[in-house]
Amino acid sequence: MQRIYLDNAATTALDPTVLEAMMPYLTEKFGNPSSIYSYGRESRLAVESARKSVAKILKAHPAEIFFTSGGTESSNTAITASIRDLRCGRIISSPIEHHATLHSVQNMNSHHGIPLDFVKLLPDGHIDLADLETLLAKSKEKCLVSLMHANNEIGNLLDIHAVGAICRRYNAVFHSDTVQTVGHYPFDLRNTPVDFITGAGHKFHGPKGVGILYINENIRIQPYIHGGSQERNMRAGTENLYGIVGFARALEMATNSYEQDSQYITSLKTYMAAELQKKIPGVKFNGDPFGRSLYTVLNVSFPKTEKSEMILFNLDINHICASGGSACTSGADLGSHVIRAIDSNPERVAVRFSFCKKNTKEEIDLVIEKLKGLI
Amino acid sequence: MQRIYLDNAATTALDPTVLEAMMPYLTEKFGNPSSIYSYGRESRLAVESARKSVAKILKAHPAEIFFTSGGTESSNTAITASIRDLRCGRIISSPIEHHATLHSVQNMNSHHGIPLDFVKLLPDGHIDLADLETLLAKSKEKCLVSLMHANNEIGNLLDIHAVGAICRRYNAVFHSDTVQTVGHYPFDLRNTPVDFITGAGHKFHGPKGVGILYINENIRIQPYIHGGSQERNMRAGTENLYGIVGFARALEMATNSYEQDSQYITSLKTYMAAELQKKIPGVKFNGDPFGRSLYTVLNVSFPKTEKSEMILFNLDINHICASGGSACTSGADLGSHVIRAIDSNPERVAVRFSFCKKNTKEEIDLVIEKLKGLI
Repeated sequence: MQRIYLDNAATTALDPTVLEAMMPYLTEKFGNPSSIYSYGRESRLAVESARKSVAKILKAHPAEIFFTSGGTESSNTAITASIRDLRCGRIISSPIEHHATLHSVQNMNSHHGIPLDFVKLLPDGHIDLADLETLLAKSKEKCLVSLMHANNEIGNLLDIHAVGAICRRYNAVFHSDTVQTVGHYPFDLRNTPVDFITGAGHKFHGPKGVGILYINENIRIQPYIHGGSQERNMRAGTENLYGIVGFARALEMATNSYEQDSQYITSLKTYMAAELQKKIPGVKFNGDPFGRSLYTVLNVSFPKTEKSEMILFNLDINHICASGGSACTSGADLGSHVIRAIDSNPERVAVRFSFCKKNTKEEIDLVIEKLKGLI
Repeated sequence: MQRIYLDNAATTALDPTVLEAMMPYLTEKFGNPSSIYSYGRESRLAVESARKSVAKILKAHPAEIFFTSGGTESSNTAITASIRDLRCGRIISSPIEHHATLHSVQNMNSHHGIPLDFVKLLPDGHIDLADLETLLAKSKEKCLVSLMHANNEIGNLLDIHAVGAICRRYNAVFHSDTVQTVGHYPFDLRNTPVDFITGAGHKFHGPKGVGILYINENIRIQPYIHGGSQERNMRAGTENLYGIVGFARALEMATNSYEQDSQYITSLKTYMAAELQKKIPGVKFNGDPFGRSLYTVLNVSFPKTEKSEMILFNLDINHICASGGSACTSGADLGSHVIRAIDSNPERVAVRFSFCKKNTKEEIDLVIEKLKGLI
């Protein structure tokens, strides 16, 4: 049986066109972008062209885009710099952040004594903006607000403009983990009140091991990784040349086919949800799947039974890739901290299905058919 | 005219065989190594096989090898952890370290108030071990000693065993930047008194954007990049799967052909040095080129003239890639901090030629011929 891959929020297949764009830099064009001879300058040009392209797509300035090793490094950089360089004395975040944020802010709290508040969640998993405002209003310290744009497990979308406006009102620094939305949604950073956003190539058919950090032009920070003068002294280390080229190409492709892809993927999600409700008794959905939600993610809640507790295992046996939560935490085997935070009902089992343009209605039908037998 | 690439200490060409090993992971095998289904476990297996292979070659335990985004991140991790987790209260380093170390220890000094001593250099650029011992003996604090195994600009090799033995005597933590030696020399880490070493794939015909940090099994540190539970909770972020596979393959290839390659490259270096002495009046060499020195690096010192000051520029015009110092610092345009530290004679111009197995005697002849005209 052919594998059905419905875990695109964990990682996506590298697009052959992206690989094609990377290939020259994996073969003959290997010069170090920091070398001053013409052969190095060709590599430098590739990096700077990639930066310009990314900046143009996100409607940012090229000087605001920094290439990193991925979304996690980007968030670590932003959070550390907000405390160390921007003098934030308190962090406001949420219990459903990705661990890249959650473990970073918890580290700032436990090892550096920075007070940490978690904003309240509404029953559908959205951030309670009134509570955010209350927390900001009562803080005596300048705050770092770190709230993700889209939750990687339940798909909830944050109103980044509303949160940014609140942050500006209270002179707070605003970092948003946008790893699930860069490459999936249009951005207009020049008109978005945010200080830091992040991206990871492998979430939108680009390469693993490369990401970006957007740093608003009004922000001045020190590097997180010290050393050479790469990335205008902001991120040391020989540039991941092919990764950077691949990141930009993948973002270009995602942007060019956004209307078409997002409509198509939305139709897959809607179809799967409808079929599940029709064919699996007791099925529910976590988050706000038909409201402000990623079109790529459907988090399904099944009644807990002996059978449903084995669901991921049995899906795997049937060559269906889906997950119980974030891949980044699956090693820990503690279940999902997101599901625990939004729904304390222990009588349910959560499975995340996440889609891409390569999935088909036929695959969904096959998965539903299997699920009927497995639940 | 064909390009002659003599800047292999900056970066090397990705070996086609290494790329071949990476290709499955750039195409069909894209699963997230942290995903628990079988498709993810295939990727996990590739990462763990790579770790075992690297460990076996370096004669370390697999649990001592951590994959990172490169040598710079590895050194940042080691230096930060030595201060933060291993309670080192003083750093002893040298003025000729790579900026990945130098800027990290200077940051620890200026931003965290950690006293920083630079060990004295001998006239040939080697570390004065007696001075190292004096510094350690008079320190009241536990020390971090950070000294590179091979200097990337002048090629000097450190006696890592002697330094390690001194460090052990004074209960100091020993970090060595081995970016220029991993993939170029055999290692026997089980019998080397060192706590941290580093490696970067692109220095030995592997991919850019991936490196390792060796952490001695007796050392317990916290991660530098917080987030998911990758790398046994030591380095968060989705693994650079193809990079890791490529790193291991490149190291295997380098190890398999070490005897042959090192002999061949040594002969190129020796030949070039002899020809330069024969044909260019006033030529000298920086460092200890015929003593304890990388076989891959020859740092040439020319008398300063109007012509020699333009030498890198003119080599470039002639499609010859060589450098004035580290590529990582060339953006800064301040000249080499290493050459300044070992040789304050402003009447000399330094050019680093660095070789690999793909260079030929014919290339050296062509370069010498050109140099005769350019000097």
